[in-house]
Amino acid sequence: MCVLFVPTVLLLFPSSRELTMVNETQHTCSTSSSSKSDGGSSSGSESSKDSSRCSTPVLDADRHERLREKMRRRLDSGDRWFSLEFFPPRTANAAVNLISRFDRMAAGGPLFVDVTWHPAGDPASDKETSSMIIANTAVNYCGLETILHMTCCNQTKDDITANLQKAKRLGLKNIMALRGDPVGEEWEEEVDGFNYAVDLVKHIRNEFDDYFDVCVAGYPKGHPEAESYEADLRHLKEKVLAGADFIITQLFFRSETFLKFMKDCQAIGITCPIIPGIFPIQGYHSLRQLVKLSKLEVPQEIKDVIEPIKDNDAAIRNYGVELAVSMCRELLDSGMVHGLHFYTLNREVATTEVLKRLGMWNEDPRRPLPWAVSAHPKRRVEDVRPIFWASRPKSYIYRTQEWDDFPNGRWGNSSSPAFGELKDYYLFYLKSKSPREELLKMWGEELTGEESVFEVFTCYITGEPNKNGHKVTCMPWNDDPLATETNLLKEQLEKVNRRGILTINSQPNINGKPSTDPIVGWGPSGGYVFQKAYLEFFTSSEIVTALLKVLKKYELRVNYHIVNVKGQNITNAPDLQPNAVTWGIFPGREIIQPTVVDPVSFLSWKDEAFALWIEQWAKLYEEESPSRMIIQYIHDNYYLVNLVDNDFPLENCLWQVVDDTFELLNSPTQK
Amino acid sequence: MCVLFVPTVLLLFPSSRELTMVNETQHTCSTSSSSKSDGGSSSGSESSKDSSRCSTPVLDADRHERLREKMRRRLDSGDRWFSLEFFPPRTANAAVNLISRFDRMAAGGPLFVDVTWHPAGDPASDKETSSMIIANTAVNYCGLETILHMTCCNQTKDDITANLQKAKRLGLKNIMALRGDPVGEEWEEEVDGFNYAVDLVKHIRNEFDDYFDVCVAGYPKGHPEAESYEADLRHLKEKVLAGADFIITQLFFRSETFLKFMKDCQAIGITCPIIPGIFPIQGYHSLRQLVKLSKLEVPQEIKDVIEPIKDNDAAIRNYGVELAVSMCRELLDSGMVHGLHFYTLNREVATTEVLKRLGMWNEDPRRPLPWAVSAHPKRRVEDVRPIFWASRPKSYIYRTQEWDDFPNGRWGNSSSPAFGELKDYYLFYLKSKSPREELLKMWGEELTGEESVFEVFTCYITGEPNKNGHKVTCMPWNDDPLATETNLLKEQLEKVNRRGILTINSQPNINGKPSTDPIVGWGPSGGYVFQKAYLEFFTSSEIVTALLKVLKKYELRVNYHIVNVKGQNITNAPDLQPNAVTWGIFPGREIIQPTVVDPVSFLSWKDEAFALWIEQWAKLYEEESPSRMIIQYIHDNYYLVNLVDNDFPLENCLWQVVDDTFELLNSPTQK
Repeated sequence: MCVLFVPTVLLLFPSSRELTMVNETQHTCSTSSSSKSDGGSSSGSESSKDSSRCSTPVLDADRHERLREKMRRRLDSGDRWFSLEFFPPRTANAAVNLISRFDRMAAGGPLFVDVTWHPAGDPASDKETSSMIIANTAVNYCGLETILHMTCCNQTKDDITANLQKAKRLGLKNIMALRGDPVGEEWEEEVDGFNYAVDLVKHIRNEFDDYFDVCVAGYPKGHPEAESYEADLRHLKEKVLAGADFIITQLFFRSETFLKFMKDCQAIGITCPIIPGIFPIQGYHSLRQLVKLSKLEVPQEIKDVIEPIKDNDAAIRNYGVELAVSMCRELLDSGMVHGLHFYTLNREVATTEVLKRLGMWNEDPRRPLPWAVSAHPKRRVEDVRPIFWASRPKSYIYRTQEWDDFPNGRWGNSSSPAFGELKDYYLFYLKSKSPREELLKMWGEELTGEESVFEVFTCYITGEPNKNGHKVTCMPWNDDPLATETNLLKEQLEKVNRRGILTINSQPNINGKPSTDPIVGWGPSGGYVFQKAYLEFFTSSEIVTALLKVLKKYELRVNYHIVNVKGQNITNAPDLQPNAVTWGIFPGREIIQPTVVDPVSFLSWKDEAFALWIEQWAKLYEEESPSRMIIQYIHDNYYLVNLVDNDFPLENCLWQVVDDTFELLNSPTQK
Repeated sequence: MCVLFVPTVLLLFPSSRELTMVNETQHTCSTSSSSKSDGGSSSGSESSKDSSRCSTPVLDADRHERLREKMRRRLDSGDRWFSLEFFPPRTANAAVNLISRFDRMAAGGPLFVDVTWHPAGDPASDKETSSMIIANTAVNYCGLETILHMTCCNQTKDDITANLQKAKRLGLKNIMALRGDPVGEEWEEEVDGFNYAVDLVKHIRNEFDDYFDVCVAGYPKGHPEAESYEADLRHLKEKVLAGADFIITQLFFRSETFLKFMKDCQAIGITCPIIPGIFPIQGYHSLRQLVKLSKLEVPQEIKDVIEPIKDNDAAIRNYGVELAVSMCRELLDSGMVHGLHFYTLNREVATTEVLKRLGMWNEDPRRPLPWAVSAHPKRRVEDVRPIFWASRPKSYIYRTQEWDDFPNGRWGNSSSPAFGELKDYYLFYLKSKSPREELLKMWGEELTGEESVFEVFTCYITGEPNKNGHKVTCMPWNDDPLATETNLLKEQLEKVNRRGILTINSQPNINGKPSTDPIVGWGPSGGYVFQKAYLEFFTSSEIVTALLKVLKKYELRVNYHIVNVKGQNITNAPDLQPNAVTWGIFPGREIIQPTVVDPVSFLSWKDEAFALWIEQWAKLYEEESPSRMIIQYIHDNYYLVNLVDNDFPLENCLWQVVDDTFELLNSPTQK
């Protein structure tokens, strides 16, 4: 298992100190040279003998920076940014939806998201809905820089330490340190206990040194329980002096409120970033609820507008957007504000709209790599993955979460990755997003034979409704509709699926398109991206027999792996070597090869790919039902095949391979 | 190493049965499908804990096999091979010549070379001419599989062990175990001493287990000191039983002699490979000398031919070639012989001729990588190097000999390699091959100014004689004439050198040529190779000033590093990141990127590149002489510049950069 060889690294490269030094140098440089995201740094000296040569891909400076550094860099460069606050959902289904929302909102380019801490909701547990697990999902599976809220009152030191340790283990690097609401009306300070957020800040710094970036809350109108506005400012300063890195404020209704607060903070020597918390009003009830909790007063001019339209949700939301946009504009125009923090209430529309109107929604987020990157600090070097999980990146991240190091630059022959077991398969974020009824409509209430399965695959490819008029928008192996890139192959894919080549993954060959290409591009601009044509499908043993004969003709050009559920494995791949199928060449960088066809991982993927037939499809039907038996038959008898056309500069020959196969099957001698 | 991960697979994968199956299938495949040189090898077992994901490039299975495995694979496949024997030279100059000969003869594709042990010549010392150091050079610097001879009589156990340890440390993996000639006429066996080769074989196996491949000598006519032919065969069998892996025979004059010997060996149960030692007669005196030493008798029919022509060296050599060719044909035709071992007497012509006539000289050796590969076992994974040492691979190998690991796949940000000091610079194999007088003729007996230096560079590029009628066939930075690839740029290079852009390294951009391309190809067939255009040169600070202005226009396209001898360093390279400038895409493999422009190594190369001005050129002249002062001036004031055009699919823009620079220099406003 991968874990095994970390000590090797440690043994071989004891001089991690120098590595840090280089990092720091870079940091200084990039800070001072400001707006460029990869400003040059020429200094740095190291004893080289011991440094690992294989540890630093760096497609994106951001991946190596702490949150406070990212913030600082944007402050220096004047780049504007935003962040999004979510609370943990109540049900597992709501969690699935929230995660989809993370993915969609990640597209806009938030600097970070934060997840609130609900003491009543078992926040540190492993429940699907706990604060801890939602934050874990955001950072690891959605690749989002994440702040986890944490409260301290009414908790023991040991519990708090354990929670922080757990957060650290999960890859969380940022904590919002809060007091939390005392239980009961009468609250008394505990001696040596955690009575205020400042106690938690101190504890974090004492126990975890500089590991976490720590955020604290600021109250533009003063904390409702503070003796005075001034006293509250002094408490805030104490929190900063105790080690907080930046401040996020409570919501407010007028830009003057925040700007005054900011000046007052500066006046008493608070120099860290202060980020205004923006609350786009989204409805009458949510506003009332929030106001009640925060003990804030809604200005009369707002009340005047809202009261008359309180039953018209759309009207209130439109007004809320309008209000938020103009307030944000005032904040940004002041020159004192670069980042905006949004209280989303777990909703998308209003916040997205505000950001779009402000021009801060990133419409064209560049993919750093052609798959979902995890934001876990230990995965920062990761830049190669097997292509098999292209449509199931969360499953890949999940199954490799125990790895102690991640491939960087080269997958390597000896990687022999231990993938997590399928027993954990039912965790909510690996399930289909769609409910059973919807899946049945898409995949068929009743199957009549293998052909009805072919039809489901075909409908998924074409986007046409099935015979009952339902569009097939997802498959067990693809939770989303066809990728734009795959659309390039649509016509061919349709043809082969109709005939029982049940495709689950494919990519066209690409011979040096610009890295900015809207469909196949990825990575920094100025580069060129390449791909070998790839086709992965399930098919019957009859077709496999013919295919193998045909493949002899293509022996030098096409690499194949053909495996059934029992693990019978036929391949012409040299040794156990991976085949790079996606790579990019960039100015001033080493080659990046983000996806490979790795013979060893394919056998792990095989287990997952076959299991999906049963777990996601067969189990929709009654046991012993004909529909279930059809899927079971396919599961037991079909082969999973992948083909790579190595001659990427020529026309993709894989369609010809398939055509030849059918021709052979239809030839009289064959019959 | 391939062997490393077999157990990993076993440990990690419950379903390892399939994997093993894959291995075996392939192995069987490649063995039976014979002649291909990169068939798999599935045996070997090692603890996997220490295997890292970054340790297996494997461009060539040969690089990972032991000599006996290579031999066995060729035996199984029926591929013919040859090997070459050399003796250590007497003088340092002769050593330089021998190393050039290694390089030239390596082109023919010997399976190995061996270096004899001269007890009188301090063979284990660090002298330039010792057996140990010559073998070290062959394996490390010339990339040749090498057998070091070693004798044992009249030596202590401790000395022998120390010698073997030294050989191991230097990367030697094969020992030819010999008794050696006893000193003095009367020789007595020492009790518990090393009296026979078999004692040495046993000692190697006792002390070094299976680390070395061990070869022993066979005597087709019986050892001259043996009691009888039969007794000698029994001694040979003892040596094999003691652990010898194969046998090389003493020379002989008739194929029957060897074939009978081989059958006799087999008859008494010797089953290891037996390789005939071939001695092409090259001259009357060398024949007499050898015959005297080996106590062999030259057959009358050969004497009859040679005696009459004994003063005509060419005639004797022609006859020797003829004789050797026909004897080798008989051996090969017998079906019992697949490999031929040549006693070269450190000469090239006769052996090369015999091999060419036999069709065994490999006229088209494929480069596994576009630079000289070392055969040291610990460098097996190496597949990336900075481009700077492209023309000085031995210097690179020398300066990195202390490295504990070598870059594989990715050079990495943190590599910061510690290159060996220049103090060791004067080792013979880093010196120019040409004597001082010749260098003066090429580079000028007397320099009159910087322009006369420009002319030397220009003549080297054009291949035209200089004004004194001498061709410039080498430069301090290039020991050989212009590479074929560089020839593609000849016209442009000539133009810029005339004007003071003194080029020392360059490559054209290549956008996907077949890996079999005779000029720019490398690696396995069926692949595509790529390059970014590269230009490296010395030039004056005046030109650098203009160049820097011009480079602003090319900021996004061209990466540059500009440094002077004091280390002033100007670059636009992002962070400390290396830029891949040569890479290849191959069927069923990961991307290989053999050369990079690495900002950190460039500063080590800078020291070497500037030092060469002084050490190789300035020092040809008297101190204080004008010629020396001109070179010293250039050394002190010029800059070393490298430029990479990142847009490899477009026309190389570096010439335009240089043109623009001169245009700027000549523009009236500039003046």
